[in-house]
Amino acid sequence: MRTAVLLQLTPDQTARLEAAGLEPVFLPDGGPCPDAFREAEIAFGNPPLAWLKASPGPGWVQLESVGFGEYAGQDLGGAVLTNLAGFFAEPVAESILAGLLALLRGIDRLTLLRRDGHWLGDNIRPTLRCLSGARVTLFGMGAINRRLAEMLAAFGCDIATFRSDWQPADLDAALKSSGILVATAPDTPCTRDVFDARRLAILPPQAIVASFGRGLVLDETALAEALHTGRLGGAVVDVTREEPLPADHPFWTAPNLILTQHSAGGTGDEIDRKIDHFLANFARFRAGEPLQGIVSFERGY
Amino acid sequence: MRTAVLLQLTPDQTARLEAAGLEPVFLPDGGPCPDAFREAEIAFGNPPLAWLKASPGPGWVQLESVGFGEYAGQDLGGAVLTNLAGFFAEPVAESILAGLLALLRGIDRLTLLRRDGHWLGDNIRPTLRCLSGARVTLFGMGAINRRLAEMLAAFGCDIATFRSDWQPADLDAALKSSGILVATAPDTPCTRDVFDARRLAILPPQAIVASFGRGLVLDETALAEALHTGRLGGAVVDVTREEPLPADHPFWTAPNLILTQHSAGGTGDEIDRKIDHFLANFARFRAGEPLQGIVSFERGY
Repeated sequence: MRTAVLLQLTPDQTARLEAAGLEPVFLPDGGPCPDAFREAEIAFGNPPLAWLKASPGPGWVQLESVGFGEYAGQDLGGAVLTNLAGFFAEPVAESILAGLLALLRGIDRLTLLRRDGHWLGDNIRPTLRCLSGARVTLFGMGAINRRLAEMLAAFGCDIATFRSDWQPADLDAALKSSGILVATAPDTPCTRDVFDARRLAILPPQAIVASFGRGLVLDETALAEALHTGRLGGAVVDVTREEPLPADHPFWTAPNLILTQHSAGGTGDEIDRKIDHFLANFARFRAGEPLQGIVSFERGY
Repeated sequence: MRTAVLLQLTPDQTARLEAAGLEPVFLPDGGPCPDAFREAEIAFGNPPLAWLKASPGPGWVQLESVGFGEYAGQDLGGAVLTNLAGFFAEPVAESILAGLLALLRGIDRLTLLRRDGHWLGDNIRPTLRCLSGARVTLFGMGAINRRLAEMLAAFGCDIATFRSDWQPADLDAALKSSGILVATAPDTPCTRDVFDARRLAILPPQAIVASFGRGLVLDETALAEALHTGRLGGAVVDVTREEPLPADHPFWTAPNLILTQHSAGGTGDEIDRKIDHFLANFARFRAGEPLQGIVSFERGY
């Protein structure tokens, strides 16, 4: 089955697709829509929107991401899009916990001290904090925050959770006493700009913010300002509104900010695992069974 | 009761000692033994060894540390030493987990990239790893590693543990398949130099070493060398043989090393918690009950 592949694969990885009965055609990620894309029955990876709009094209597109904002609300000529919902839960939840613990235990500052050849020793101790017993607000209860909640169980955290049916008054009340806020929500009309300057100001002094969903959920300027004034204690940010981050963006210099550069889903075996997922979905496709992870533009995830 | 205090306390903290019936006398941590030390019945903090040897002195010394190597094997004129065994379990276990997750999820490298204003983005993803499912050797099963084991439960790690009755052949066998080694053992004749060049070479390629017990357990030169050659994947080191770390020590420049500068036990409320502990032990002292944390030079912890 002719398959347009938008990822770069090794010969071994290509052989896995072929062994499953696929005929992979590797396409560049850009330029005008190639004939090979139009003629493919399946696409694997994230094709340019313009290609998908230039129908007819593949009837099924297996994205290599969870997010699909670039396609939302567009007429894709009837193509079915499946995403990798849940695929990144483990690495992203580990990156969130890594970032939170790094800020609390001073790992970021100690890393810079070592680069500078500077021994601060005992003087750093009074600035350190523990995760144990923290009050945590989890905004977005998809696979990532559900996994994070499991990890936090060992720390006796007091956790407030907010799903797609969240109520503004409840969220404001939870933020008031939350030393840690973790946002992993997708970009939908009901999540955009939720964490604006007013809501960030509700958090207690020295609170820590982790932003691992879509960048559009958060007012980046307000967060940077709250870090600069020292009102917030730190932030871990994976996804930003613009990537790569522009050179003049305040996140480059805001104090106590860990910028993970949209790497949180990454692992050394990421591509192999994506192929696992694709081939499992392809088996369903061939058997006429429902595909996993069909995206809903209406719902937004 | 006259109490020689070797810590720096705030007026509020001093008032807590006085309210408990103590008469605190603040002494400098050095110089010849002052009369006020000789006349004290109790000492709070870690006095210079020479003072303790210049008996008569306080009958009870409440150390502000877990380690007591500077006093081991010395004739202290009959003074009872109590340490803070277990006191640092939560912050140290959190610092260990923070360091391990930082290395696996790239937090240290991302921190340096931000300082350099450099966006690496997707290219960092293949270099990241997950803690989930790792095989872990815990060497030393005091309060710290017991707490760490609780935290690791959420990650489905395969954990091998070694206590004071550890057998060399068993340890070697466990190291062979351990992606992570965490040493929190005290310095005793049976732990010194355990992790020498030969044992570090048993670990699988890209393994990570965390050293949070006494620095004497580990061959620092061999560890730095294994990081420089890239055979080991990273290390988190809290306690070193010499502190502050000498300027020419290879730990300043070894790749993928996080140096926590003996800060891992630190928290903002550390002194208040030490006073809590001291006053609880003082209540036992006054009531003639057994003190908590009496150290054993023979056992070494």
